[in-house]
Amino acid sequence: MASFKSANPFLKPNNDTGFGNNPNSYGGRFINKDGTFNLKREGIGVFDKFSIFQRMLNLSTFKFVLLIVVSYIIINLLFTFAYLLAGPDQLQGIIGQTPWAKFKETFYFSTQTFVTVGYGRINPVGDIASILASIESLSGLMSFAIATGLIYGRFSRPKSYLAFSDFAVISPYKDKTAFMFRFVNYKDNHILTNVEIKVSVALLLEEDGAPTYKFYDLQLERYKVDNLPMNWTAVHAIDENSPLQGFTYKDLENADMEAYVLITGFDEIYASPVLQRTSYTYQELKFEAKFVPMYRESDDGKMTILEVHKLNEVTEAKPQIKA
Amino acid sequence: MASFKSANPFLKPNNDTGFGNNPNSYGGRFINKDGTFNLKREGIGVFDKFSIFQRMLNLSTFKFVLLIVVSYIIINLLFTFAYLLAGPDQLQGIIGQTPWAKFKETFYFSTQTFVTVGYGRINPVGDIASILASIESLSGLMSFAIATGLIYGRFSRPKSYLAFSDFAVISPYKDKTAFMFRFVNYKDNHILTNVEIKVSVALLLEEDGAPTYKFYDLQLERYKVDNLPMNWTAVHAIDENSPLQGFTYKDLENADMEAYVLITGFDEIYASPVLQRTSYTYQELKFEAKFVPMYRESDDGKMTILEVHKLNEVTEAKPQIKA
Amino acid sequence: MASFKSANPFLKPNNDTGFGNNPNSYGGRFINKDGTFNLKREGIGVFDKFSIFQRMLNLSTFKFVLLIVVSYIIINLLFTFAYLLAGPDQLQGIIGQTPWAKFKETFYFSTQTFVTVGYGRINPVGDIASILASIESLSGLMSFAIATGLIYGRFSRPKSYLAFSDFAVISPYKDKTAFMFRFVNYKDNHILTNVEIKVSVALLLEEDGAPTYKFYDLQLERYKVDNLPMNWTAVHAIDENSPLQGFTYKDLENADMEAYVLITGFDEIYASPVLQRTSYTYQELKFEAKFVPMYRESDDGKMTILEVHKLNEVTEAKPQIKA
Amino acid sequence: MASFKSANPFLKPNNDTGFGNNPNSYGGRFINKDGTFNLKREGIGVFDKFSIFQRMLNLSTFKFVLLIVVSYIIINLLFTFAYLLAGPDQLQGIIGQTPWAKFKETFYFSTQTFVTVGYGRINPVGDIASILASIESLSGLMSFAIATGLIYGRFSRPKSYLAFSDFAVISPYKDKTAFMFRFVNYKDNHILTNVEIKVSVALLLEEDGAPTYKFYDLQLERYKVDNLPMNWTAVHAIDENSPLQGFTYKDLENADMEAYVLITGFDEIYASPVLQRTSYTYQELKFEAKFVPMYRESDDGKMTILEVHKLNEVTEAKPQIKA
Repeated sequence: MASFKSANPFLKPNNDTGFGNNPNSYGGRFINKDGTFNLKREGIGVFDKFSIFQRMLNLSTFKFVLLIVVSYIIINLLFTFAYLLAGPDQLQGIIGQTPWAKFKETFYFSTQTFVTVGYGRINPVGDIASILASIESLSGLMSFAIATGLIYGRFSRPKSYLAFSDFAVISPYKDKTAFMFRFVNYKDNHILTNVEIKVSVALLLEEDGAPTYKFYDLQLERYKVDNLPMNWTAVHAIDENSPLQGFTYKDLENADMEAYVLITGFDEIYASPVLQRTSYTYQELKFEAKFVPMYRESDDGKMTILEVHKLNEVTEAKPQIKA
Repeated sequence: MASFKSANPFLKPNNDTGFGNNPNSYGGRFINKDGTFNLKREGIGVFDKFSIFQRMLNLSTFKFVLLIVVSYIIINLLFTFAYLLAGPDQLQGIIGQTPWAKFKETFYFSTQTFVTVGYGRINPVGDIASILASIESLSGLMSFAIATGLIYGRFSRPKSYLAFSDFAVISPYKDKTAFMFRFVNYKDNHILTNVEIKVSVALLLEEDGAPTYKFYDLQLERYKVDNLPMNWTAVHAIDENSPLQGFTYKDLENADMEAYVLITGFDEIYASPVLQRTSYTYQELKFEAKFVPMYRESDDGKMTILEVHKLNEVTEAKPQIKA
Repeated sequence: MASFKSANPFLKPNNDTGFGNNPNSYGGRFINKDGTFNLKREGIGVFDKFSIFQRMLNLSTFKFVLLIVVSYIIINLLFTFAYLLAGPDQLQGIIGQTPWAKFKETFYFSTQTFVTVGYGRINPVGDIASILASIESLSGLMSFAIATGLIYGRFSRPKSYLAFSDFAVISPYKDKTAFMFRFVNYKDNHILTNVEIKVSVALLLEEDGAPTYKFYDLQLERYKVDNLPMNWTAVHAIDENSPLQGFTYKDLENADMEAYVLITGFDEIYASPVLQRTSYTYQELKFEAKFVPMYRESDDGKMTILEVHKLNEVTEAKPQIKA
Repeated sequence: MASFKSANPFLKPNNDTGFGNNPNSYGGRFINKDGTFNLKREGIGVFDKFSIFQRMLNLSTFKFVLLIVVSYIIINLLFTFAYLLAGPDQLQGIIGQTPWAKFKETFYFSTQTFVTVGYGRINPVGDIASILASIESLSGLMSFAIATGLIYGRFSRPKSYLAFSDFAVISPYKDKTAFMFRFVNYKDNHILTNVEIKVSVALLLEEDGAPTYKFYDLQLERYKVDNLPMNWTAVHAIDENSPLQGFTYKDLENADMEAYVLITGFDEIYASPVLQRTSYTYQELKFEAKFVPMYRESDDGKMTILEVHKLNEVTEAKPQIKA
């Protein structure tokens, strides 16, 4: 990162990004590809730092089910040991004679108590087992209440179903060159309404003799649409009002360019505002390329077909930027 | 669709509709009568494309109950076969002697386990049946948690209760002609507040020698009301600022006219914004007709009566458009 | 209602109220005291007209519990008859010998099945009873899922906790006369933020020779506050810009005056917008009266005490309107 | 509080705070440190005043669990006494001979009924016990429905996770002096978007010869940011437009200064607006101090580290206000 371009004094920077501008405190990229912030917290307890509910909502379905099953087994093992510690005559109806058989039957009794199925062949007669069983069945119900809340939370949490192109392109656009990327609404019926898009760019530039991160908003040809049923290509013309004007690929690399994107809209299914972020660094740019169309009329002429798999398809195009 | 009218160069089109303007990629209508988009997705897995939660919310009550009952039977049949495969001595308390009787009793045991009623006459003694039963009762509880979430989601999902007239009319209006349709809030107490209505029109017009879809917003006499307790007639005067001025019925047909409607408001019961869409194509226009009033005072003079059944009632009226 | 005042042609009416202005279709008052609209729907089925979920949310706690208990009894009676119809040998473990004793025991078995407690002393052995029991326990779980949803819906539904003064007053205000009413936030911690108040008035006035309802917004001295922790008095000065200027009590009666009120704000506990309505007719006006203060400092000087019970307390005051 | 400064007649006060301005009705501070209002309600029943749901949401996890356990024990004790009152032959299967043993077994039976585990060894045979059991198990299910609602409500309630510095500082700022405080988003991934901050100040000043509370908004160098992933220092320059200009510490004490803060933003996880309040009184000011930076680059240069524990760390700085 030897030489930095100078900041254009005529361009208005965006100082409200919420990011710092000191290169010494900046770690690689501001926003990760998945839209999270590239940031770690220190000096705060793990329970204060993480929101358990939010973690549970973001687990994959597989991991969520696994967590339930593993918790189920562990809780029942703990209660099994407690029943066994309480003594052999606390439970009535156990058939097995060996310790292993008794352990297994006690474990089955524990599961029958936790889920409140309570067949009753094995049942508690001693005080300790009876109290343990009343605690276990209450715990079971409460665990189940928590699971219900988590499952509903996973269902009902508003999220926007947008897939972004893996890269942005620098394409010819009208008689200019433009920075473009696109995204598609891949979920049936989750139409976004009143969609707005905001693109900003972070550039490491020289100002007052020192390298500093400068932030600029990128003007788009169109920054809002009424509805987003299909796909949308965001287009920023690289002209005299663009902070990217005159940058070669090398310049972008030196400037550690990162364009970050925020899409906001209103989701009709959730009746809730949703937003989604992503970012493109200089490594995620494609030059001399433009996106191919991604929808067509159906064969019977009655419907529009959105070709979601073409999201990343490009053809060659000669941009006028010097690569 | 032989001849296309030329696009009026003095009218400002709405380029933010989110629809494409290429006639070759347009399938019949942009928005279906029920407000969904006339669109299909391709090249994406069915699980990515559909939102299961949203599908469940949109099922009719009958289908939703049927789905629960059918799932209940199928899951219990699967567990029944598993218990039977495990062997005859895994369950204790079965009375029946024939395979069919044993199958039935095992099935009943399975249902008693799944819903955690667990009478206990039949109960698992073998390891396999005990483990199967602990899995089945956990599955039962989790299925029930999912059902609870879906039922609450179905209850609580904000929706707007508007019924639209089946057709729009072209009526005389003051000294002009107007495009009108109306809608009614048919649900008691679900008052909409801060209601806004937006009407746009898609017209296939000739521009630069080629037919292309042009989109225009239709100006309304009134586009917002404070509250919507009753019905509302949307009125677009067809004057020199209207993209429909001078169109005969044949012209509208050639232009493949489609007017689409978006109503937004705030629902007080759900404390949530709601929106509803519909569209009117040229086939859904009625000429020389106007809507009759649809409310009156109650007989005792103490209340207003909204006559919802008159939503589609019209009388003859001479519009000044050439039909 | 012999003589009507003429509409002041210099005042801008509010035509966006969503109410009709025809006296022949107006029933007594537009908005009821409790904020609902004075309106009935006709020509639409009861299930389409009412929202069951919303009805359940609005029931008093007593009625809601009663509904659950009564439903519980009725459902169990239905299943009891079904078990009895199936025959005496379908259930095992019944002790009673008389029909009445058998009925009672069958009913108890039914409740044990519905709530899935399933002790098992009485249990189904016949096919019909087994199938009935599997249906009943599934119904029980589903009923319970519905109850969970309703209970959560009742808990979590955003509502604004404002109590309005029973009447509005016409009081002296600075060197003028004003129309005033007040309201108080009576719920601890349910602070409203960004509160706005809108007051409109409906007056039956003569226009073009015919009586017609005219709607006007009433300008307030202050129509928004940042927070509403306490009480607030809305003040409309009756000056030359007021539609009420020069009205005697008789005039207000003839004009069938109704002032309706809409308060909107953001509730921090529910993190949701809330709104509340009420209305004041000419019968609910108090002349020559003004509100007394309703808060004071606590004895130790450490806290403000809000005296909610003083909401309707007034003292005499000489207004300058001719009563 | 002998001498009061005069209110600056050229400064525009904020009269929309919702607070009263009479020193005799003001109790110490307007807003408590935790953001609640320093206010008590009188003359209204405890059930009307408190929102039970909201109370349950605000309980600590420990107290919430304790409440569930204590309620569980109390309800079961009540039912135990009811079963015992009904007589010794109402329950079948009790083994114990002493009253204490019978009491215990009845209690265990009650818990087994309440949580619907229903082993069945002990089961009701008499009418009274059968009816009590059907009531208890229904109560159990309903209690559990309530608990599910409360647990989900606790999970899903939108809240903003901001920690404020314990004090505000009066620091040199550019060539002026400024009032500053800061706050940090301490929760991973709960990024706030469109964050706005509003700071007002209450000052007891002399106006028209009498001391009265005056409210002013404090202008900030920056009052909104696009995102709040990290920390933010609010800066109010004390210049000629500031209501604090020329105040010594003694003046601030006499004026009973209280600055109160409202932060609003949109939380992406909850897809909901959130807000948080706090206040700083003159006792919570630090002079000649400025905040130290609280983030740095990670050792591998790939991430930003936010040092949450440095929130209250300051270094000496010479402000130009006379202390």
